[in-house]
This record gives sequence, C-alpha cells and structure tokens, in this order.
Amino acid sequence: MRAPMKAKVHVTLKPGVLDPQGKAIAHALEALGFDGVADVRQGKYIEIDLEHGSGDSGGDSSGDSSVGAEDRVNDMCEKLLANTVIENYSVEIES
Amino acid sequence: MRAPMKAKVHVTLKPGVLDPQGKAIAHALEALGFDGVADVRQGKYIEIDLEHGSGDSGGDSSGDSSVGAEDRVNDMCEKLLANTVIENYSVEIES
Repeated sequence: MRAPMKAKVHVTLKPGVLDPQGKAIAHALEALGFDGVADVRQGKYIEIDLEHGSGDSGGDSSGDSSVGAEDRVNDMCEKLLANTVIENYSVEIES
Repeated sequence: MRAPMKAKVHVTLKPGVLDPQGKAIAHALEALGFDGVADVRQGKYIEIDLEHGSGDSGGDSSGDSSVGAEDRVNDMCEKLLANTVIENYSVEIES
C-alpha cells in the first residue's frame, strides 16, 4: 500500500442505442440559442481511487502493477459499472 | 459547415461535495469482492457534435475556429451542463 493509483472510467452508450438524455440536452441547448449542435450523447465518468498494490490476484505483484490494476478495473466494468449489452467502456490508469 | 468537430465535456463534483452515487458504487464494488477501492467519484461525460464553422459570434471565423468552439462549449457548460456551485467542468475540442 504505497501511493494510490487513480482509474478513470468512461462509460458510453454504443452507437445506435437511443440516448433520450442526450437528445434532451441538445434540445435545451437549441432553446438557449446555441445553434450548430448536431448531436449530443451523454455518458458516465467514474474516478476510482485504488490503493496501490492491493491487487489480490495471487500476489502477482511483480512487473507493472498498473497492468494488474487495469485488469481489475476492466473486471469492475464488466460486473458492475457498465451494461455491456448497450454500453462501451474505456479504462485509463494514472499512478 | 465543413467537417464537424466534437467537444468532450467532463462534469465532476467539486472536492468536498458529498457524492452518494460514488459511495454506492464503492460499497457495491466491495460487496462484489473488489478490495483496495479507496474512493469512487461519479461525474458526467458529454460528447457534443458541433457543426464546423457554425459559431455565429459576429462572423469571426478567421483564426483558429476550435478556439471559438471551445468558448461556445464553455458557455454551454456555464448555462446548462454544469451546476457551477457544486461542479467543475473541463472541455476538450477534437476536430
């Protein structure tokens, strides 16, 4: 448990999936007088502070631990953060 | 109206503002067996497709039009996308 790492996760709707929230924003922007807005898509942005070296996957703490962290956060996305039927996600690790 | 530009907007809660949604995610991750999660903060991620050169601010289309676009999107954030009392925002323009 040394310096913490930060994972930045973007969860976005897959292309083709209707985004009523984005449409609402686009209409509101138009009503406010902003023209030239072709499309708006709203997604989620999640920042996760990870305790450094807390990956418990068999004590494989050799090598680059940010790789282990990325795997772990991908797993979080698959299991909780994203609905992979309709959403894509991307993970970025900052140490 | 040439090639469109894309604006990527992140809206995040200011430090110190309570984030119950993030806390709920952190607890759910713990319940799923992910340890080492120190903190989770949830924000919004908004992609805006802008028609290129549609900035109507007095026809000042000379110079770098992505600067005009950034100003315009900052304005959108101030007026609609972010609650600047409790939220920060950042804008990134891709052409």
